[in-house]
Amino acid sequence: MENRQIILNELPDAELRASHFKLRANPMPILAEGEILVQTLYLSVDAANRAWMQGKTYREPLSTGDVMPGFLVGRVVESRCREIPAGRLVEFMGEWADYSAVAGKAVEVVPDINPVSHRLSALGTAGKTAYFGLLDVGRAITGETVVVSAAAGSIGTLVGQIGKIKGCRVIGIAGGAEKCAWLVDELGFDGAVDYKSDNLYRGLKSHCPDGIDVYFDNVGGTILETVIYQMNVKGRVVCCGAISQYDNAQPSGPKNLPGMLVIKRIRMEGFIALDFLDHDTTASRELHDWINSGKLKVVEDIVVGLENAPSALVGLLKGRNRGKTIVRV
Amino acid sequence: MENRQIILNELPDAELRASHFKLRANPMPILAEGEILVQTLYLSVDAANRAWMQGKTYREPLSTGDVMPGFLVGRVVESRCREIPAGRLVEFMGEWADYSAVAGKAVEVVPDINPVSHRLSALGTAGKTAYFGLLDVGRAITGETVVVSAAAGSIGTLVGQIGKIKGCRVIGIAGGAEKCAWLVDELGFDGAVDYKSDNLYRGLKSHCPDGIDVYFDNVGGTILETVIYQMNVKGRVVCCGAISQYDNAQPSGPKNLPGMLVIKRIRMEGFIALDFLDHDTTASRELHDWINSGKLKVVEDIVVGLENAPSALVGLLKGRNRGKTIVRV
Repeated sequence: MENRQIILNELPDAELRASHFKLRANPMPILAEGEILVQTLYLSVDAANRAWMQGKTYREPLSTGDVMPGFLVGRVVESRCREIPAGRLVEFMGEWADYSAVAGKAVEVVPDINPVSHRLSALGTAGKTAYFGLLDVGRAITGETVVVSAAAGSIGTLVGQIGKIKGCRVIGIAGGAEKCAWLVDELGFDGAVDYKSDNLYRGLKSHCPDGIDVYFDNVGGTILETVIYQMNVKGRVVCCGAISQYDNAQPSGPKNLPGMLVIKRIRMEGFIALDFLDHDTTASRELHDWINSGKLKVVEDIVVGLENAPSALVGLLKGRNRGKTIVRV
Repeated sequence: MENRQIILNELPDAELRASHFKLRANPMPILAEGEILVQTLYLSVDAANRAWMQGKTYREPLSTGDVMPGFLVGRVVESRCREIPAGRLVEFMGEWADYSAVAGKAVEVVPDINPVSHRLSALGTAGKTAYFGLLDVGRAITGETVVVSAAAGSIGTLVGQIGKIKGCRVIGIAGGAEKCAWLVDELGFDGAVDYKSDNLYRGLKSHCPDGIDVYFDNVGGTILETVIYQMNVKGRVVCCGAISQYDNAQPSGPKNLPGMLVIKRIRMEGFIALDFLDHDTTASRELHDWINSGKLKVVEDIVVGLENAPSALVGLLKGRNRGKTIVRV
């Protein structure tokens, strides 16, 4: 039996292409004491995968020849770790591969749920990121105006819906008229601005007549620059990602920073969901309840086949997905 | 008797020059009911004076022909306001002029202190800005590493000294070897980096071996960009001003924002001292006590003569001052 892996064959200097990767067939790994053999069920495809190619982040940067790392959920098929018998569902920062051998202590055993893919979307990091970002970092409250960029993406679809559940006015920023209509019609956003065709400044101005209290920023760059001009005094910018900057040779920051933060006394704060693990029980319970009661729609963009993971990542960076991009291996 | 006023004769499109202003002699103002006539004692010269020329801030932008506005402390010489008799010391957002007629309700009556100029430096907005910015916004605590830019300036000299009083390691960024030596020798900073001659990145690296916890930013631009790379996870950037950007035709933001905020979960927050008036009693008492006990040195750069206010502002923007720039009228 073979184990296919996706290798980063060349580091991108600007736009990432599927040809920067290659598929390699290896023998099945042999387990050491304490290890488990995990069959990958679903791979999480994230903008962060691209950011890791740019340099040091919260993890070491990637190098040519590395097996592409990624967060995954999988099934234990063989075990030399007493605590985790075969059959268990586990999650960990693993590899883009059919199988991986991993130390039992490096994984989290998670309860079986149906569908398992939700572990990578609304019930996983994306859900927690949206929840903690909007409510703990952004402190959005009833009646406030929330704007979210990459609104049709993995986190944006959740931020917008959670904002509505909490009684906020929610405006999305997305690319394309169709996506924008879908945000309003299907997900219940109060409005959406197509940054590719509309004038973003005027679009926001008409949708946010009372200004913007919380901006959940997934993109950085010129969109951030434009939104900041319409923030209210004491507004909050939740810095979740900067997808506009990951795929560029020459990143460029918003020209109005930090000046506008001073003028409007804005708080701008970066975070990752892991920072809020102490609130995890409440977040998980609320997310479960909202999904079960139909208040929160889980949107997943499932790509089939390990070999399609590179193009799924490229598609994500180009904004082709709706909801969470997941590869079913 | 005449009343001299400084007029903004031309809006600068890039660097401000003294020739953008002119001196005009007017008749003395005549008081309406409820007004007081104030003789200007000291004018506060601030980077904000320049920022007001760029567009809308927390006040309306300036136009050609306006009398230059500015914060001042003065003595009431005539009164048609029952609550404020002649002889009182008052502070308000007034004009660059020998005298002004102002509504009694638009001023704050303040206790006489010696020297009166301290009302515009350590016991005024500069002192409160340093205090609230470092302690309430930055939440600097004992043992942390604090970096402050424009360290030899009005606010920087106070931030550094307050940081030392509170048990922080304090590193200043200033222009010129002489200023840097003075920060260490006279004001007790743990170190200082001359951004004009030294490599700022390497200089900070050697002075801050454990990284930077709080950056008190008075300058924005490329200095902010450089400092952010050395911030610790959960670091705080206190956004007090962006003097590097006020005197430019083409402002440019740090290229690593917001990306680095996400990676390091940094909080970056703008503020003005007025936002913290509810903590004012404690701040005032501590500042008084530190000055009286000699722990806090008040550094003032006093320029004599109303006619020299424009060149004082130009000098401030060029970083020629040490401590708070004040015009004695």
